[in-house]
Amino acid sequence: MSATHDGARRHLENITGKLTPEEIALRLSTKHHASAARVPGATLTDPDVVEKRWALLPHAGDEAKANVADAVSLERHALFAHNIENFIGTVKVPVGLAGPMRVNGIAAQGDYYVPLATTEAALVASYHRGASVITLAGGCTTMILSEGVGRAPAYAFHSLLEAGNFVQWCVVNTEKIRETAEATTRFGKLKDVRFTIEGNHVYVLLEYTTGDASGQNMVTIATAAVCAFIAESCPVKPQYFFVEGNLSGDKKASSQSFQSVRGKKVAAEVRLPRKIVERHLHTTPEKMVDYWRMSALGGVLSGTIGVQGHYANGLAALFIACGQDAACVSEAAVGVTRFEVSGEGELYAAVTLPNLIVGTVGGGTGLPSQQACLKVLGLAGAGHARAFAEVCAALALAGELSIIAALSAGQFAGAHERLARGKKTDA
Amino acid sequence: MSATHDGARRHLENITGKLTPEEIALRLSTKHHASAARVPGATLTDPDVVEKRWALLPHAGDEAKANVADAVSLERHALFAHNIENFIGTVKVPVGLAGPMRVNGIAAQGDYYVPLATTEAALVASYHRGASVITLAGGCTTMILSEGVGRAPAYAFHSLLEAGNFVQWCVVNTEKIRETAEATTRFGKLKDVRFTIEGNHVYVLLEYTTGDASGQNMVTIATAAVCAFIAESCPVKPQYFFVEGNLSGDKKASSQSFQSVRGKKVAAEVRLPRKIVERHLHTTPEKMVDYWRMSALGGVLSGTIGVQGHYANGLAALFIACGQDAACVSEAAVGVTRFEVSGEGELYAAVTLPNLIVGTVGGGTGLPSQQACLKVLGLAGAGHARAFAEVCAALALAGELSIIAALSAGQFAGAHERLARGKKTDA
Amino acid sequence: MSATHDGARRHLENITGKLTPEEIALRLSTKHHASAARVPGATLTDPDVVEKRWALLPHAGDEAKANVADAVSLERHALFAHNIENFIGTVKVPVGLAGPMRVNGIAAQGDYYVPLATTEAALVASYHRGASVITLAGGCTTMILSEGVGRAPAYAFHSLLEAGNFVQWCVVNTEKIRETAEATTRFGKLKDVRFTIEGNHVYVLLEYTTGDASGQNMVTIATAAVCAFIAESCPVKPQYFFVEGNLSGDKKASSQSFQSVRGKKVAAEVRLPRKIVERHLHTTPEKMVDYWRMSALGGVLSGTIGVQGHYANGLAALFIACGQDAACVSEAAVGVTRFEVSGEGELYAAVTLPNLIVGTVGGGTGLPSQQACLKVLGLAGAGHARAFAEVCAALALAGELSIIAALSAGQFAGAHERLARGKKTDA
Amino acid sequence: MSATHDGARRHLENITGKLTPEEIALRLSTKHHASAARVPGATLTDPDVVEKRWALLPHAGDEAKANVADAVSLERHALFAHNIENFIGTVKVPVGLAGPMRVNGIAAQGDYYVPLATTEAALVASYHRGASVITLAGGCTTMILSEGVGRAPAYAFHSLLEAGNFVQWCVVNTEKIRETAEATTRFGKLKDVRFTIEGNHVYVLLEYTTGDASGQNMVTIATAAVCAFIAESCPVKPQYFFVEGNLSGDKKASSQSFQSVRGKKVAAEVRLPRKIVERHLHTTPEKMVDYWRMSALGGVLSGTIGVQGHYANGLAALFIACGQDAACVSEAAVGVTRFEVSGEGELYAAVTLPNLIVGTVGGGTGLPSQQACLKVLGLAGAGHARAFAEVCAALALAGELSIIAALSAGQFAGAHERLARGKKTDA
Repeated sequence: MSATHDGARRHLENITGKLTPEEIALRLSTKHHASAARVPGATLTDPDVVEKRWALLPHAGDEAKANVADAVSLERHALFAHNIENFIGTVKVPVGLAGPMRVNGIAAQGDYYVPLATTEAALVASYHRGASVITLAGGCTTMILSEGVGRAPAYAFHSLLEAGNFVQWCVVNTEKIRETAEATTRFGKLKDVRFTIEGNHVYVLLEYTTGDASGQNMVTIATAAVCAFIAESCPVKPQYFFVEGNLSGDKKASSQSFQSVRGKKVAAEVRLPRKIVERHLHTTPEKMVDYWRMSALGGVLSGTIGVQGHYANGLAALFIACGQDAACVSEAAVGVTRFEVSGEGELYAAVTLPNLIVGTVGGGTGLPSQQACLKVLGLAGAGHARAFAEVCAALALAGELSIIAALSAGQFAGAHERLARGKKTDA
Repeated sequence: MSATHDGARRHLENITGKLTPEEIALRLSTKHHASAARVPGATLTDPDVVEKRWALLPHAGDEAKANVADAVSLERHALFAHNIENFIGTVKVPVGLAGPMRVNGIAAQGDYYVPLATTEAALVASYHRGASVITLAGGCTTMILSEGVGRAPAYAFHSLLEAGNFVQWCVVNTEKIRETAEATTRFGKLKDVRFTIEGNHVYVLLEYTTGDASGQNMVTIATAAVCAFIAESCPVKPQYFFVEGNLSGDKKASSQSFQSVRGKKVAAEVRLPRKIVERHLHTTPEKMVDYWRMSALGGVLSGTIGVQGHYANGLAALFIACGQDAACVSEAAVGVTRFEVSGEGELYAAVTLPNLIVGTVGGGTGLPSQQACLKVLGLAGAGHARAFAEVCAALALAGELSIIAALSAGQFAGAHERLARGKKTDA
Repeated sequence: MSATHDGARRHLENITGKLTPEEIALRLSTKHHASAARVPGATLTDPDVVEKRWALLPHAGDEAKANVADAVSLERHALFAHNIENFIGTVKVPVGLAGPMRVNGIAAQGDYYVPLATTEAALVASYHRGASVITLAGGCTTMILSEGVGRAPAYAFHSLLEAGNFVQWCVVNTEKIRETAEATTRFGKLKDVRFTIEGNHVYVLLEYTTGDASGQNMVTIATAAVCAFIAESCPVKPQYFFVEGNLSGDKKASSQSFQSVRGKKVAAEVRLPRKIVERHLHTTPEKMVDYWRMSALGGVLSGTIGVQGHYANGLAALFIACGQDAACVSEAAVGVTRFEVSGEGELYAAVTLPNLIVGTVGGGTGLPSQQACLKVLGLAGAGHARAFAEVCAALALAGELSIIAALSAGQFAGAHERLARGKKTDA
Repeated sequence: MSATHDGARRHLENITGKLTPEEIALRLSTKHHASAARVPGATLTDPDVVEKRWALLPHAGDEAKANVADAVSLERHALFAHNIENFIGTVKVPVGLAGPMRVNGIAAQGDYYVPLATTEAALVASYHRGASVITLAGGCTTMILSEGVGRAPAYAFHSLLEAGNFVQWCVVNTEKIRETAEATTRFGKLKDVRFTIEGNHVYVLLEYTTGDASGQNMVTIATAAVCAFIAESCPVKPQYFFVEGNLSGDKKASSQSFQSVRGKKVAAEVRLPRKIVERHLHTTPEKMVDYWRMSALGGVLSGTIGVQGHYANGLAALFIACGQDAACVSEAAVGVTRFEVSGEGELYAAVTLPNLIVGTVGGGTGLPSQQACLKVLGLAGAGHARAFAEVCAALALAGELSIIAALSAGQFAGAHERLARGKKTDA
């Protein structure tokens, strides 16, 4: 046991470096001296303000400034005014093309070239390989299974009795709640109202459809109106309430995903003939299923929500390219992957993603390079949100095929072993 | 009940639009016709190849092409060669500045201007507000609690007996395993080896420290070497094995996070005097704690891993700006937020994030605009990974303070109500 | 690191004792020799059969036989015929009384003496203390929030398209599904039908109310009838299907609990005046809330479903006493506990349990001593299931009050320290 | 949508019956009238006290009293004094025999007749069937993979700095902590000390081995001694601390199980030849694996911890029969089941249970009928805890085989359909 604790001691030293306890205490003490200068303006768009902000950052150097605050970015300052505050320029994320990826979906129909923005080597190549075998096999099928974006205002009452009375009032007044919500939006529809009571607390889950926008602002505004209506009209008065009680799963992986939906719930499936698996992925359906089984249980043992490999890589890259909210990767990357060998010896592969919060209007979708990426897909502007969601699921499927093929073929290791030969790695 | 199912029927129609069953079947059928042209090259960097790739995308239009494949991006084609394949240009993500944010950490010391790349309105403003009150209060304290990046090769044996014998052999040969792993890397150290047995399967969790790199490639290469060593030397032969069995939590929220670590486990805390809360956040410590309690249980009821509000927003924006792996938001956005009113009426606020996979060398950190953002922080290059991780945690704390203040003050609703007045929203 | 592995090696030795690898291999090898004699009969109730079964167990000794197969138990052999197979006697679990516990519920009304069957010292005393302070405070409030028991048949199709068509057919035929289900039962009502699609798999969640029975057999039979109806009538044919696809959360803690219900979802709350807390629990509301906060986050960090202390102790003891299905403790022990200090300095305490699968008819509720315990509560037979569920929640609340008081007062430690003085413990 | 809410309204009426809002309010109001008489004594064992307790329960009736407070139970009053408080008699749970079940384990060796105490029809028959096919196949292999019981005292400090200093002190003083803990117990050994820091809170996880006892009291006493030692010796003083901070997973399903252990982590596996599956289980290995896959994903979709079918049934029945702590079913029923078809067409089946808190001394193991059941197994008294844990895992395996066979053969439905014919069910 002392052995273990020598380990722990060394570990602590690793964290603190060679600092003495006194030095650590000094570093962690609060310092009430005068603060550095504040960043001027918030969304001010006068031409000088960016310059003034960079004046606060002399340590960054001129080259850094030139790389972020380049001429084209500065020209577009006004254009970015509704997307960013305290603007200082742009970061340039390289975009690669995966595909063509054939999607036979209800909304998505065709051979898509998928733009992926990432700085991680091998990511585009891996999805490209997955997309290619999907296309070779005649395409994947995709289907939106459910739609809805939730907001969950939360109410604290004095007692369980009042909580119950409140719910009863809401149920009786649902039609008015719906009218109130929908009066704030052209495209949003209130689809369902559900209640979660915990002691004297009530969470009201309002679920909306949001047209072609990802809809997070839309539902917040509609919900605020509902809260105002309730505050005015409901005789059961809460001790306090909040417009969002953190039950909606917003930007967090949550296990309620499979019982409900965040954005769009989409499935994608493909059947790969054995020949394609052997020739193009250099493995067999059986080996891929062996990997799937072991990795699914690896997910279970580590406590993931759903079981899946690498949705996050592709979704993050596609979201950044296409002006989606990249923070939504935290919830979008949840889902279930399943691989089976069919009776005919084909590989059946499917992914189901319950939390695709995406849109083709609003947010960053109208910015020049982001809209360009949507145009590469042929999915810019109104009328394309569902097809975009189906492309997301198809891309996730492509990623699973490629990574699982690589792992089951031993290539994952192999590639890196080759790289490792002769030199030590430093990244 | 039939009522419910009218609802379900309408819902289905919503998904499928006005398509007939025949039309749906037609859309979902696999199409084995000739595929679209393939994207040329993978990492080819000859000047023409980008042009050839765009030639596949005539539907995108010239303006789209100009916005992605601008002159500066094309010039840097070679520079991106180790970060992207099938390059077609860059997407420009606007960057805003939050801060100064004072951090009194073991590694991070100073007033940081934090560059955030996002297309979501109000995000920078919200973090800026949180950072400002932290600074006003003399700064937040940060501390790295643990470090390590895991890889988990997985072995399938014929029987439990062989699985047990295999583990025994590994335990006896740990020193050789360590030597083998560390021979592949200058900076990586093998810190721990643990085993998870499930029936006749063994997952070997190898945990490394990785210096200033986020280290995912480094640990993959080291682990491949370990697997090769085991394959050669261990007398207990598996039926099959994989270099990663999906137990390491890579790019997925997983509940093992709090028992282990992915990258760096970091805590940040601050004490806000009542006056600062009242004057600058327009609420009280008590109201913020009421919100925290209700939202923490909202998280519990919805099945999140940890309890937290909005880490994903700030982390995604910081990761994109600074060339981190944006897909890691899926795991980094997990943690625990706690707010309390202290005896003296101050607000005590803390966040603990167990999965910060970040680095200041490798990956996208060397690209021009990304490195520029690291320079804005003063944290570019070797020697800064720990400070960067502490800044991540401080930023998450800033975000929690700002969003919880807004929700407890009713501003979240208020702001949107004002926006909503007079016009319907469409995003 | 070698240190860690000395630890691991010692740990392995601890598991295997002093066995050599050869001895271990010998022990774990499959032995195809003639098996021991089989247990005669299954539910045979002839007087001799118990004797014949004991004849297989000479190693147990006569005293053991006498203690299990006592005269009274043997007399009641026929009585047990619908509750047990291969009967050999009874095990006697001591029952203690907690209370009176005052419950002011919608269904439960009165001062209940609660019979608890357990072999764990201090359990009854602890719940008794909790029940007593509840009663002193005028009783706790209880409310059933939702009811329903689910079965989830699962269907595998060839494709997503067929899965979608199947769901569509089911939606159109819901009324017939309901009729089919309800034709099998006098008391069961089909309350809701929901669908979870995962790739080409469909889980159909049928949710029933079950009157005064816990209802697990009732819903299985009704669901089997639904499956038969679908098999006959639905033109979309599955590759295979099962009457239960393990989505219903049956006898397992599952995080869907808070979005749905298993049996009855019940909340209980109480307000304890400061005086009662100080005089009878020897602590303060503030200390209890400090404990609650820390333990709630302890639950979050360890990955529990909900956050709670010790529901399992009380529920297991009450279930065993009252002829409930003791295996249901696995799901019933999930829920959320919340403690707050109210504005007036009282302690507000609430528990919410979403999975109380209980009944007052059927199962073991009709056996002599089990029915006697229900009679002690005044809740034997039809018409009492809701009141019984409310008593369960009230009991869980009593337990939380008592254990959290003990821990916050330092008594938990204290009591054991006294016990520990002078002698080493061996249990 | 109004449709949905008619449903909700009807649902509410279902919960409240025909009560008016006023009647509901009246029922839920706190009643400060004089309480019913208190239960006399706690562990008093004078002959009259049981009589006096029953005098409080005239409503139960004489028959109920006779069935609980029978002569034999009353005689043994003193015997139960260390297992129950406020004793009023015993509840008799019928015991059935499953087996013989052949176990080829490291500790368990032989053909076991397993006593199961339950009131649920078909439970014993189902496990008996599973045990029988295991025996026919030459037995199952079992192995304890890890051992340990944790207690997790929790400390609140003023700051992260103090939290860090505290951990550092504990690491330096580990040997003294170990000595202090082990001085309180003859059999307990402190195996590991780990720390979880969350903001300024520290949870100290102390992991013990506990010999043949389940050990929950043992570790509490040892931990209290450690807390007293720390309180006396550590210069870093907490604001407050508790001897258990709810991180140990005590009596709750928690996802940390697979990274650690509660009690004993045990695996069991068997290979069933195709002939045995076909002849005795009336299905095929392939169908059973189809079921396993679908049910494993059903578990994942519903958010269970691990994936498994019905461990709770068997474990609860065995725990009650053998004087184990039945509340531990809440955590013991967690694990992973895996079924595969092997290359030779056999069925490979394995279960891994990480949380078997069991013992063969202490608790209820010494009571007459409980000890008798341990004797039926041949596992009463010291030296048998490991074998008992292996039998638990083997029993869980038997249950999975039987239930999955029944579901995959359609018998689960079939049996109930037959029962349902001609009469409506009421349970």
